[in-house]
Order: sequence, then C-alpha cells, then structure tokens
Amino acid sequence: MRLRNKPWAREYIEAHPQYIVANPENYKGKWHEVFTNQQPLHIEVGTGKGRFITEMAKAHPEINYMGIEIYDSVIVAALDRLIEADLPNLRLLNVDASDLNKYFEKNDVDRVYLNFSDPWPKTRHEKRRLTYKDYLKLYENILVNKGEIHFKTDNQGLFEYSLKSFSEYGLLLTFLSLDLHKSEYEGNIMTEYEQKFSEMGNRIYRCEVKYQN
Amino acid sequence: MRLRNKPWAREYIEAHPQYIVANPENYKGKWHEVFTNQQPLHIEVGTGKGRFITEMAKAHPEINYMGIEIYDSVIVAALDRLIEADLPNLRLLNVDASDLNKYFEKNDVDRVYLNFSDPWPKTRHEKRRLTYKDYLKLYENILVNKGEIHFKTDNQGLFEYSLKSFSEYGLLLTFLSLDLHKSEYEGNIMTEYEQKFSEMGNRIYRCEVKYQN
Repeated sequence: MRLRNKPWAREYIEAHPQYIVANPENYKGKWHEVFTNQQPLHIEVGTGKGRFITEMAKAHPEINYMGIEIYDSVIVAALDRLIEADLPNLRLLNVDASDLNKYFEKNDVDRVYLNFSDPWPKTRHEKRRLTYKDYLKLYENILVNKGEIHFKTDNQGLFEYSLKSFSEYGLLLTFLSLDLHKSEYEGNIMTEYEQKFSEMGNRIYRCEVKYQN
Repeated sequence: MRLRNKPWAREYIEAHPQYIVANPENYKGKWHEVFTNQQPLHIEVGTGKGRFITEMAKAHPEINYMGIEIYDSVIVAALDRLIEADLPNLRLLNVDASDLNKYFEKNDVDRVYLNFSDPWPKTRHEKRRLTYKDYLKLYENILVNKGEIHFKTDNQGLFEYSLKSFSEYGLLLTFLSLDLHKSEYEGNIMTEYEQKFSEMGNRIYRCEVKYQN
C-alpha cells in the first residue's frame, strides 16, 4: 500500500476514542465491556481502509468485529467509514499486530481474518509475514480452542507459503478455493484490494484453517 | 482417458512377464528379488501410457520404479515404451490400485506418485478419488515411515479436495506450487496429459506431502 503522510491523522484518531479504542490494554480479557454484550469477537489483522470489516459488521450484527491496523494514515479511512456507518458491533485498534498479546488473552477472540496481507516476498523477511509460525502462535494465544483463521490473497507466493506454514503448525485445512470469484462460495465481501486486483484479472485464493485444540 | 478396446492387449501383456510382473502377490515384502538390488522403490499409481515413469527411471537409475495401471488397453502403451527403453529399474503392474495391499506390505514402497488422477468430480464418487482417505490409508500401509506422496494435476477441484484430504489425514505439506510451469521447480518430467493440458493454457498444480510417522 502506498502510504501518504497525513500529519493530522494522529489527532483525528485521538478525537474518536469511541471508534478507535484508546488504552486497549485496559480491556484484555474483558472486551465485552467495550461492546456491552457477550457476542463472539472476530478480528481482522491488517484492516487497511476498512471496507471488509465494515461490511462484515453490517451483514452480521450478531458478531462483534475489530479491525486492527498499524498505520495512522490508513486507519483514518476505516475511521471515516465507521463514523458514517456508526455500527455498535465494530471497533478499530491502531496497534502493531506483533503486540496482539498485550491487548488480548486466551479465549478473547473467536476468529482471525487475514486479507491481502503484505507478502514480504524476500526470504529474509519471512518473519514479517502474518502467516509465519510466530504469528500463528500469537493468534493461538488469543483465540478460543478450535479457533479459525480465514485468509485470502491474490499473491500466489504468499498463499503457497501460508498453506505450508499452516500445515507445519498443525492447523486443519477446512476450506480452500484456488479461484474464489469463479467458485460457488457465497457471501464473499471484497476488500478494496480484492476489487482492484480481481478487476486486473488476478485470481483470488482463499482458505480457512482451524487450530486442533 | 478415452479407452479403445484392444482385444490383443491381454495376450501382449502376458507375453512380457519380464516387464509387466506376473503373479505380483509372490513378491510382497521381497520386491528386491525382482529388481535384484536394494534400491528405494517409487511407484506411480495410475501410470497411463508410461511417459512419466519411464523418463523418471532413465533420469534416476539409483531408484527402482513401478508403474501401476489397471487398464489393459492403456498399459500396453507403457509396455511398448519399456520394451524400447529396456530399463533394469522399471517394472509395470497391471492391477487395481484398491488392491495395492495384496502386492505390497509396510516398508515396501518409499514414495507414491499420483499424476493427473481421474478427478471423479461428482460428490457421490468421492471414494474413487486416489486422494480419498481410504487410499491415503492404503498408501500408508505400504510406505516406509515418513513416506511421501508427490501429486500433480491440472484439475482445480481435485487439487483443492486433495489438499483438504491430506490435511485431514494429518499429512505434512512440504512442497506446493499453484502454477508449476511458471515456477522455479527444476527437473519436472511431464506426463502425456500434462503436456497436452498445459499447451491448452491450463495451470499445473503440484504438491508433496509426507506422513508424520
């Protein structure tokens, strides 16, 4: 993603603590206080401009959603969407994915979404890929038992890597499409990237994996 | 594959017991007697007209190969190839894959190749797919510990199904290419089907999986 410098972003984020949770470390183990209900929580790691998570929250009011995005200049676009939609079941978090364990504990999260994550194609950057084993461990530590990761991307190399990484970690592959937009899968909500890349003729790959315990 | 009736095929097969093993049940647990050496044995289940296994045998004289094909009218093409090449490390077997345990026992086989297996796309034919769990059990019962299956196909549905089936069975995914002919994989030997389908523009999918014990 091309990052534009937006010097006003930080101030804009801090002016909306009802949407972008301030002091999230205070809610570890008690996220239901933020949502004021006991619904399951699905998080998207790397939520970008927020189209996916906003549309998911509209379509599934019985689920709580949280979009996690590290970049100030990107999350403000998701914030604008959320201000407009004003959904009670969606919040944003402006933190680094590698710090997830500071804000969530075991059983806080019911599902993790990874959509069009940065492929980090160079081997020396493998550890930065959101499907690297250390991240899979991080998700395991905040998910419920038998928790799921739902992953899609148009990047063939990242998808191949991720399926191997999931297998090596012992995750069970429960859904796989090697050409999502030509499949019978229903209810797909496109991300901004997905629309752009699929219009360019790229295939979209998608899978669901499940922790065995 | 379109099967032509070849009434002479049976007689032709029986006239070449040095290439298409006669009475294979006699060699269960002692296939080294057939090859007169102790080399590893790799088998191809559904060897078709035999191009892959013949070329593999030429390229890897340090491995013994066996091509297994149920159809008389198809295996005769593989037989012609073998008569011409006269390779000491290649034999053919004219049997049904579901009977493999009649001819092989645990540790007889070091690797299984599945190439462009019949996709059996209808759900009610799932049990006939060579990557169905019962077949994975069959291979496990004749392979060495940590034995491998190497699988390629151009059929997207079969590949998706197979990756899920492998995962569910607990097999470890160690190699994956979602577009083999555009990958950096070296030493690929094309089957007859593979050449035809890739020339038509089809992608070739390939993976390697390993039993965990």
